[in-house]
Amino acid sequence: MANTDSVSVRVFSLNCWGIRYVSKHCPQRYAMIGDLLCKGEHDVVLLQEVWSEKDYLSLKKKLSCSHPHSHYFKSGVIGSGLAIFSKYRIHDTFVYRYSLNGYPYMAHHGDWFGGKAVGLAVLSIGNLTANVYVTHLHAEYCRDKDSYLPHRVVQAWELQQFIRHTSAGVDVVIVGGDLNMHPQDLGNRLLRTYTGLHDSYLETTKFDGCEDGLTLIADNPFITEKELGPFEKGIRIDYILFKGSPKLGISCDSMSTTKGSVPNHPFPYSDHEALTAELRLKPRPLTDAGGDNQSKTQDSNAEKLAELVDIVTEARTEVKVGLHCAERMRYTAARTGVMGLALLILELAIAAVPWLALGVEQPFPRTSFYLLAALCFAILLSTFLLYVFYTMELKSLQGAEDQMRLAVGSLQEKLRGFPLAQPHDPQRKPPEGQEPNAYAPEE
Amino acid sequence: MANTDSVSVRVFSLNCWGIRYVSKHCPQRYAMIGDLLCKGEHDVVLLQEVWSEKDYLSLKKKLSCSHPHSHYFKSGVIGSGLAIFSKYRIHDTFVYRYSLNGYPYMAHHGDWFGGKAVGLAVLSIGNLTANVYVTHLHAEYCRDKDSYLPHRVVQAWELQQFIRHTSAGVDVVIVGGDLNMHPQDLGNRLLRTYTGLHDSYLETTKFDGCEDGLTLIADNPFITEKELGPFEKGIRIDYILFKGSPKLGISCDSMSTTKGSVPNHPFPYSDHEALTAELRLKPRPLTDAGGDNQSKTQDSNAEKLAELVDIVTEARTEVKVGLHCAERMRYTAARTGVMGLALLILELAIAAVPWLALGVEQPFPRTSFYLLAALCFAILLSTFLLYVFYTMELKSLQGAEDQMRLAVGSLQEKLRGFPLAQPHDPQRKPPEGQEPNAYAPEE
Repeated sequence: MANTDSVSVRVFSLNCWGIRYVSKHCPQRYAMIGDLLCKGEHDVVLLQEVWSEKDYLSLKKKLSCSHPHSHYFKSGVIGSGLAIFSKYRIHDTFVYRYSLNGYPYMAHHGDWFGGKAVGLAVLSIGNLTANVYVTHLHAEYCRDKDSYLPHRVVQAWELQQFIRHTSAGVDVVIVGGDLNMHPQDLGNRLLRTYTGLHDSYLETTKFDGCEDGLTLIADNPFITEKELGPFEKGIRIDYILFKGSPKLGISCDSMSTTKGSVPNHPFPYSDHEALTAELRLKPRPLTDAGGDNQSKTQDSNAEKLAELVDIVTEARTEVKVGLHCAERMRYTAARTGVMGLALLILELAIAAVPWLALGVEQPFPRTSFYLLAALCFAILLSTFLLYVFYTMELKSLQGAEDQMRLAVGSLQEKLRGFPLAQPHDPQRKPPEGQEPNAYAPEE
Repeated sequence: MANTDSVSVRVFSLNCWGIRYVSKHCPQRYAMIGDLLCKGEHDVVLLQEVWSEKDYLSLKKKLSCSHPHSHYFKSGVIGSGLAIFSKYRIHDTFVYRYSLNGYPYMAHHGDWFGGKAVGLAVLSIGNLTANVYVTHLHAEYCRDKDSYLPHRVVQAWELQQFIRHTSAGVDVVIVGGDLNMHPQDLGNRLLRTYTGLHDSYLETTKFDGCEDGLTLIADNPFITEKELGPFEKGIRIDYILFKGSPKLGISCDSMSTTKGSVPNHPFPYSDHEALTAELRLKPRPLTDAGGDNQSKTQDSNAEKLAELVDIVTEARTEVKVGLHCAERMRYTAARTGVMGLALLILELAIAAVPWLALGVEQPFPRTSFYLLAALCFAILLSTFLLYVFYTMELKSLQGAEDQMRLAVGSLQEKLRGFPLAQPHDPQRKPPEGQEPNAYAPEE
């Protein structure tokens, strides 16, 4: 690839709904997905919910010619379900497991066992370095009363942190996956605003797919009405996001989604629609950075910064709500545990006292005695485990809140450096790409 | 700070041994540590084993004048124990929790509950950006039969991944903490070779401290002979590591450690010795990168790469040993669980059959019946939990092994790009800072 030419990269993302023996027509759908991908029309394939490593391995075998490089991200009890197949060489991989991911006792929701994470693969596209991320966030089971919202917000927070901190210096950033968030949801705004990632659906010049870019649609036979709730037509929760660098511009030439059915097949690839984005990478002319639009850019930067402060503050509030809830749950667990202990002591006292003090025959019916003791032990054990679990949840929420508070302070400090926010201080130097260093000795 | 001048940064690192009500003289030692630090002689303070947030908060209060910026990294059940105090503004923080960290049932070792992690704080030193990392790895309880070795190797692997991926583009990298590894231990070599970090003890021009830079010494009254094993004088397991960037050089002017006792105090700050390194940051002249030494540098790069391949391969072997061990443990848990289930079924059969088939009085003694049933349930529950835990351990070990395999492949590919490794291919372009792109379309 010559540096002066543009390069096209076709990215594919699909939540495969690959729960063996549970998801409908799982083997057939994997076969369909393999058939689609092995045509080699996609350069980078990002898959979610490939829960079984066997399915990954059979896909890997099938795609060995079209996509010789691949990686399966392992995490949690079952796995993260994340996989990447690529035509470009994968040089390095890294996985970040989210600190919060639902509750183990909500086994029917299953998220906790999945070990939700974000996987990073460093690819070489010609002489460019691309950081490709694939992720899957906690599902939303009830939008009105979403008890997992603080968890998902913390996941979005950690996702943006991971992307920001690991992508400095790379040419291209591509993120694909099932975010389980509507386009204007808090976590989505947080992710896009903090990282500067662009949504390929919003940026594309050509679109072919479901109305409004929906990826979970009523027309998909695997989707029930209940799942969509008030959103009759469907919702958009799967995304392909991208970002260039100072030396490399990136745009979306075209985007498409599947539309709920696949020609010549009785059912679609998955309960989610598949996304394909054709991204164009083009070196930026060297003059792009400066120019006479500097003050305009600064104004827009200040606006963006102010927006970001608002969003992080909103996220902090949501995390605080989660904190209160987790504290309450932990308190309930502790109280139940104490009641279990009191019951056990009471039982032992009733059983022991007559025998000890009066020397008479044990009056407590044995069956009831053992059943009650077993119940007490079960209560004590489960409340202890819950207490430990809620303590970990609290630590993660507090940690995220601390980081958010620090970030808001730092962003506000940065904002004060902009002339727009400080009209009465014309002497102050405008920041030049760098953050203003309030504590720099020379200032 | 003018860009042309050099800047001195004094870094302090100490494992505080701060287990409330367990560690000896804990409050007094925290008071001593606070007194030492509030003198303001250190610019960046990295603390480990600050297990109680209350202790962090009281230190924060005491150091509010000398170190106005601080962060406490939260993780796990108890916390990560990691804290940073800084004279420079902290702009951003991020924490990565290691995927493996001992076993919850080894409660007397306590590591699992600590949620060992690596914390990152992004500081502004004048107009430079510094990534400062503080970490604490799993302890080594028995060097000869170290069952935690695979866990520690995976932690070192994840630590180097985290540092490498998050530090691209920053001017300075500083890492401090208790690595629980001797200088030539596998994990330590892996960390230093992969990241290019320098050990301040080895690099310093002036050293004042314990012989051989030891940080866990026999002269420390809190250290027992048993802890040091065959290393009578002591061991070096605490480190301050550093790295510059293409535009910024970094060197260590001086380094010192405490020597087991503190003047005018009856006991030392901790069971570990405190480390202080004075680092000098100096912009590199622009000509530094090129020059007539290019082929020499390439030779040395190829050598380093070959060394790295060996180290990663060694680490992979260690992880494989861990994998076998975890598989065996999981198998044992499963077998015990099956036996528990068989016992329960047998018991139920014995108890039920006469009653069902013959209609006679229950011959099974009730007390034994309930006790046996409780035992069976306890076995089933604990083996189930263990099975889940070992599955997670296996996933993490397999994940690390996959990443290592991929990394070795990529490094070997890179190595093939060096003329040293390919003497018969003089036509091949030497790589210019960039990795050679075997899959780049133009090659």
